Amino acid sequence: MLEPGRTIGILGVGQLGRMLASAAAKLGFKVAVYGPEVEKSPAGQFATIRVDGAYEDAAAVEAFARGCDVVTYEFENVPASTAAAVTKAGVELRPNARALEASQERVREKNLFRKLKIGTVDFWPIADARDLAKALPKAGPSILKTCRFGYDGKGQARLQGDEDPEAVLAELGGGPWILEAMARFEREVSLVAARSVHGEIAYFDLCENQHKHGILARSVIPAEASASVKEQAREAVRKVLEHLDYIGVLTVEFFDCDGTLLANEMAPRVHNSGHHTLEACSVSQFEQQIRAVAGWPLRDAETVRPMEMLNLIGEEIEAWDELAADPEVDLTLYGKREARPGRKMGHAVRPWRK
Amino acid sequence: MLEPGRTIGILGVGQLGRMLASAAAKLGFKVAVYGPEVEKSPAGQFATIRVDGAYEDAAAVEAFARGCDVVTYEFENVPASTAAAVTKAGVELRPNARALEASQERVREKNLFRKLKIGTVDFWPIADARDLAKALPKAGPSILKTCRFGYDGKGQARLQGDEDPEAVLAELGGGPWILEAMARFEREVSLVAARSVHGEIAYFDLCENQHKHGILARSVIPAEASASVKEQAREAVRKVLEHLDYIGVLTVEFFDCDGTLLANEMAPRVHNSGHHTLEACSVSQFEQQIRAVAGWPLRDAETVRPMEMLNLIGEEIEAWDELAADPEVDLTLYGKREARPGRKMGHAVRPWRK
Repeated sequence: MLEPGRTIGILGVGQLGRMLASAAAKLGFKVAVYGPEVEKSPAGQFATIRVDGAYEDAAAVEAFARGCDVVTYEFENVPASTAAAVTKAGVELRPNARALEASQERVREKNLFRKLKIGTVDFWPIADARDLAKALPKAGPSILKTCRFGYDGKGQARLQGDEDPEAVLAELGGGPWILEAMARFEREVSLVAARSVHGEIAYFDLCENQHKHGILARSVIPAEASASVKEQAREAVRKVLEHLDYIGVLTVEFFDCDGTLLANEMAPRVHNSGHHTLEACSVSQFEQQIRAVAGWPLRDAETVRPMEMLNLIGEEIEAWDELAADPEVDLTLYGKREARPGRKMGHAVRPWRK
Repeated sequence: MLEPGRTIGILGVGQLGRMLASAAAKLGFKVAVYGPEVEKSPAGQFATIRVDGAYEDAAAVEAFARGCDVVTYEFENVPASTAAAVTKAGVELRPNARALEASQERVREKNLFRKLKIGTVDFWPIADARDLAKALPKAGPSILKTCRFGYDGKGQARLQGDEDPEAVLAELGGGPWILEAMARFEREVSLVAARSVHGEIAYFDLCENQHKHGILARSVIPAEASASVKEQAREAVRKVLEHLDYIGVLTVEFFDCDGTLLANEMAPRVHNSGHHTLEACSVSQFEQQIRAVAGWPLRDAETVRPMEMLNLIGEEIEAWDELAADPEVDLTLYGKREARPGRKMGHAVRPWRK
């Protein structure tokens, strides 16, 4: 168990890092944050130590890691060389580099699901227009995604099956790609869970999520779900956690197709659909992550008060004063200066009644 | 309403400042902390801006305040000259200087209670041994306290009434003093409440407190109490808040003498007996304080889950690993390096069942 007073390093400077910093503060740790423009960043504003640098600068990351007792991250696009730099400094990266590799490339991610016998949609790796021309007729209505660096609906295109492969790839850019059959799902759910250094797993309740323009808009904890659906989700998450010898919080998003779950994607970190664990649960996803990476035991992640969370995207933040005045709303704002379209600026949590 | 992204200044570097910083982070503010050895202090470790300086250095405080949009404090012994320096910088101090004056000197505090017709114990201002010689026979079993700078039982002596006045004052030191008749109380309770810029008041539930060696050891929210006791506490707190045109969180501690409350002392700030509002209530005392000083509306301060809080004093912190492993315990550690005797190192909160 890492002693209070030790330093937890975080790669990444956004709102997840900010909320992780508060959780680390609660448990008596110091927090060092690494990333570009760290000083004015959401996480940097509340870090004990701020180190400005590029994620690709292995030497700088190695020096940063030497000042930490353990290192974690708040986004999955940490380059492999960066993960290696932490290890080179003699410091543990939690979750480990395998978790990063598995989740930052969509084909690898889907192959892992398949290998672990976790249901997923049909998919085709796409290296060029020839691959796409072959796959499209089989796939029919489908989604073409870049294998890397897509998030919040970016790097995606919906296809009917009759498009011109060359034109589609040129427009989307940034290959290689993956073509995914469109799931006929009723709803989307996600499961956030943590695994400790001793292999103990604590699951939050399933969340039901609604997206708008590819970005999470609303999430409810707990999702209404049958015992079978809950069990499928836990089973899938458990398999991934154990296969990767994972330490920390993992999130898997699923399509719920009439009671059968298909894994859509996973994130090796605290997740937007788990923000309301702070208000709803006996412990938050942020504290579980700090506990796990610090080698502490996890807490039970019981839902005490059902809650819904609404993301505040872009100019939706302009209603902050109305939300602040709503007696039902628990408001969290991320300290970002510019409300660019599609940018997550904060979230509002309120009690959820059926 | 102060806009998110603005800077809230805090005078004081301890655990209260640390928890206030987390609450400010949640609401999208920056936090500037001022005090001695700020860099490694509990609050400084998680502040956006850290300014090292003495509380008596009016010029430095004025410069600090110029960088803030509003200034608050986490301890009541802020010198009057320091409060004036904030005002001189053209920045609002919340709660105001009158709240500081009223609560940092025990005779003034008791006189205010008396003036507002809030029940309190009999008391005698003591300037010298002659005063004490006159008061002691009237008081009988009593407590002699320094008027300023006492906390956690420091600067106090219990008297039977037959002591030698000269010797007692020489031993206690640091006059002037106040002699307080010993209340025959059943228990101690406290009420934490906040008042907004618009005069709106939100009360937390009454807490029941147990002290050990003059230091708070345990607090339960909500205290079991009759409607009359609850009403007496609210009425007392309301009178003080309104009389002082107070903005922020105020705490009043009472002796419960068989259903009659006597005000013991007040603190113009978030309070140790309100820490478990974070786990127990729909909003924490820390968020209420940030909301109030930022000119935001307050939230309802309803108890959602009854909780007890145990302070971790001095070497009690050595059991941190057992507490971290207790599935019922919500642990908060303050990031202090040295566990000196009597020093508050953290607290443990757990569900309270009768």
